[in-house]
Amino acid sequence: MKLVRFGPSGQEKPGTIDASGKLRDLSSIVQDIDVAALSPAGLSRLKATDLSGLPEVSGSVRYGVPVAQVPNLVCIGLNYTDHAEETNAPIPTQPIIFNKHTGALCGANDPVLLPPGSKKLDWEVELAFVIGQTCWHVSEENALNYVAGYMVLNDISEREYQIEWEGQWAKGKSYPGFAPCGPWLVTSDEVPDPQKLDLWLDLNGTRVQTGTTTRMIFPIKTLVAYLSRFMRLMPGDIVTTGTPPGVGLGMKPNKFMKAGDVMTLGVTGLGEQRQIVTPAQ
Amino acid sequence: MKLVRFGPSGQEKPGTIDASGKLRDLSSIVQDIDVAALSPAGLSRLKATDLSGLPEVSGSVRYGVPVAQVPNLVCIGLNYTDHAEETNAPIPTQPIIFNKHTGALCGANDPVLLPPGSKKLDWEVELAFVIGQTCWHVSEENALNYVAGYMVLNDISEREYQIEWEGQWAKGKSYPGFAPCGPWLVTSDEVPDPQKLDLWLDLNGTRVQTGTTTRMIFPIKTLVAYLSRFMRLMPGDIVTTGTPPGVGLGMKPNKFMKAGDVMTLGVTGLGEQRQIVTPAQ
Repeated sequence: MKLVRFGPSGQEKPGTIDASGKLRDLSSIVQDIDVAALSPAGLSRLKATDLSGLPEVSGSVRYGVPVAQVPNLVCIGLNYTDHAEETNAPIPTQPIIFNKHTGALCGANDPVLLPPGSKKLDWEVELAFVIGQTCWHVSEENALNYVAGYMVLNDISEREYQIEWEGQWAKGKSYPGFAPCGPWLVTSDEVPDPQKLDLWLDLNGTRVQTGTTTRMIFPIKTLVAYLSRFMRLMPGDIVTTGTPPGVGLGMKPNKFMKAGDVMTLGVTGLGEQRQIVTPAQ
Repeated sequence: MKLVRFGPSGQEKPGTIDASGKLRDLSSIVQDIDVAALSPAGLSRLKATDLSGLPEVSGSVRYGVPVAQVPNLVCIGLNYTDHAEETNAPIPTQPIIFNKHTGALCGANDPVLLPPGSKKLDWEVELAFVIGQTCWHVSEENALNYVAGYMVLNDISEREYQIEWEGQWAKGKSYPGFAPCGPWLVTSDEVPDPQKLDLWLDLNGTRVQTGTTTRMIFPIKTLVAYLSRFMRLMPGDIVTTGTPPGVGLGMKPNKFMKAGDVMTLGVTGLGEQRQIVTPAQ
């Protein structure tokens, strides 16, 4: 099932994309794509619903963040061997954990904001997953039961803020518009193997990132179990799982984005995003 | 005004501590200590309320996190010169920013959980502030207008996870119970100068941390303005501002906590906390 939130920012309604690709309004079934809808009971109820009777939404719509009121946006760093190599970082022996401020979240095709004076804006196509139920000290064997679904996330990064301006990556990862996600949240039952997905990102029409989740250092089930030893993941938490090679920081010379640049990106079965870099103020 | 949330975990009700120290139930006035209550309009309305007519709550109560549905828990690292020195870290020239997962939040006197196998559990008394309205690219001059109030926060840290287990501090800062806060949120009008507050922490009755916010490297107004360049702070976001010297990591030899240890701590005018270190499982 593909779950979406559509409409103007702050006024999104819940929806679903049916088998023929039509957007249908879920407002009569759920209040939002929220903790209740994403719980195992909520998802079972949705899956048992006959979508064909729901109102079709026609015309051009904006897709918002597919999850309402995200409690935390947790990130994994350097989770692809070849990306760690391109950024001259050692291969991690344990997952690297950091957070983006949730104010970074935006819809799949919303503008990516260029902070005033920013010179090192970079892209990172990633596979993200969404937690469906409270998850604390779970085993790898059970880990995927806690994942409600998967989506595309572009982990936009300002490398000067992240690396050169002292301390901790959050500084370069948290600006508004730095976490486009969606367009859809694809429920776990429709992603039989999250470790066999291709990822790609084009900058101004030129392919820059090509990857596959087979190359993850720590697969999703390991990440869920590992994270659950250090934090109690909450329903609605988004975890984004690191980027494959091909980011601007890895190019020689480095390549960063300017106003007007266009990113298009996607992950197998999870849809595509398109963002235009837009000055913030 | 001292705002609280009292009652069992997950069922807290809004309350206030009146001038004579009595807890009064605010449920008839506000739904919760939430975004609406913490907005400038919400706070003005609360301040105009005659509290003496509200029901008094007697007996022993638990104080929960003073803010409902905290969107983000943002932290500043190494913000006291003498604490940076004791941990052998260079004095930052810009604020160091990281996040704790919001699942770490707990009430002022709730147990601090000891993760299974943890050997390096440490304490950090801090002054925290709560954002009252959306805050993005604000000046230092206006910064304090965005602060709804102040409270005590104990930034509990597992130093092995934080420092030795690869990458980013969030890993050692996010376990459930690692962010006791409150007991009260004291509104900004009752904290005329947040840079003239004393902080202290006792471990098992022995004073280990003594500090004053006069020694902050970056004062609150600078932190608000600086953060607002990297993230759009949201109403209800908690920002905790670093710890003064006296943590276990700074002692020679290092001193860390074990089950049964008791922390008592406080900040001038913001109340006191008491936590017992308790095995998680």
